[in-house]
Amino acid sequence: MNVRDTLALELNVFAEFRPTLSEETKKSPYVFLANIDPRLQESVLEQFDDPSVVACDTMNHWIESAREPLEELLPRLDLLVMNDEEARMLSGEQNVSRAARRILDLGPRSLIVKRGEYGAILFSPESVFAVPAYPLEEVFDPTGAGDVFAGGVMGYLAATGERSEGGLRRAIVYGSVLASYVVEDFGGQRLRTLTRDDIDRRYRQFVALTEF
Amino acid sequence: MNVRDTLALELNVFAEFRPTLSEETKKSPYVFLANIDPRLQESVLEQFDDPSVVACDTMNHWIESAREPLEELLPRLDLLVMNDEEARMLSGEQNVSRAARRILDLGPRSLIVKRGEYGAILFSPESVFAVPAYPLEEVFDPTGAGDVFAGGVMGYLAATGERSEGGLRRAIVYGSVLASYVVEDFGGQRLRTLTRDDIDRRYRQFVALTEF
Repeated sequence: MNVRDTLALELNVFAEFRPTLSEETKKSPYVFLANIDPRLQESVLEQFDDPSVVACDTMNHWIESAREPLEELLPRLDLLVMNDEEARMLSGEQNVSRAARRILDLGPRSLIVKRGEYGAILFSPESVFAVPAYPLEEVFDPTGAGDVFAGGVMGYLAATGERSEGGLRRAIVYGSVLASYVVEDFGGQRLRTLTRDDIDRRYRQFVALTEF
Repeated sequence: MNVRDTLALELNVFAEFRPTLSEETKKSPYVFLANIDPRLQESVLEQFDDPSVVACDTMNHWIESAREPLEELLPRLDLLVMNDEEARMLSGEQNVSRAARRILDLGPRSLIVKRGEYGAILFSPESVFAVPAYPLEEVFDPTGAGDVFAGGVMGYLAATGERSEGGLRRAIVYGSVLASYVVEDFGGQRLRTLTRDDIDRRYRQFVALTEF
């Protein structure tokens, strides 16, 4: 379940989607540009007044078909989120550490490489942080795990105001916590019953999983 | 470089190898049974007086061709070391956590599952510990990485006398440190110039890589 194969992509209503943000939304300091045409991501980003954290996801389709607008977007990002296959494709490097260095040279302040059941790695110019995925005995449906991961990261940053390296590390652990829950049920169902206690308990389990 | 394909296995002199241990060797409290026919591993283990830590590696070939003697050996092990593919094969479970639970039911006190560039996981009946591999930009030759990893684990346990869960976790980090060096050069060459300072420096880098 670790690899996504894109068999077909139908943009449908997204093909002509040109969102106009409300005045309230434009004031948000936290922006996550979910995976879509990078030209659309940029037109959305343009509408924000003065965001303090801009994160962005992308996928193989845009790396292949819209590389130039994607590369124009990268220097405006605090955080680029992608999986290992996409990092290899964007950089042309097989080795993930070399791929990350190339991608950071393109401008994003930090890069998170998602590795499915193997966890995630955060690359910044001066540091690397790796966290394993939570070892689950049952993975029911990985759909949305990447988006929920990113949502957890942004949620933690927004809730705490953290911008430090340590804060970003903890945000990634919270993202991993949420992703570990969402795969337990179909689609996003598991989030409907998830409590703050569940989240905090599994965060402590991540501490126990990784401390030495 | 994460997957080993066994194209052919020629045991050669090992086919009839029946080692007789010296009196001094028999007294060793630390025994690592490197990957070979489990009947041979057992005949070596029999010769030790009273070992306090017995670890064992194995591979797909023995799981397929000598499952019964391998399963007889398992309850005598403190630590079984294998890669994720082998854990799946031995247990018949695709999911690594479920595979580990099944294998622990066969008798080893602990199980380390090696995952190449993704690191290693330690499973004990009551706890799980995951450590990422050190993110290297150049991997020259992965030959021997698994054996060096196990050597580092055993070396730490022997040098410190540690038997606690925390000690085993640190041993796995030291094993990961050594494995991260050995892949930098051909075969075991890198170990010839490795210093204690190199080892301690990379151990600290593992701390920095994983702390949050």
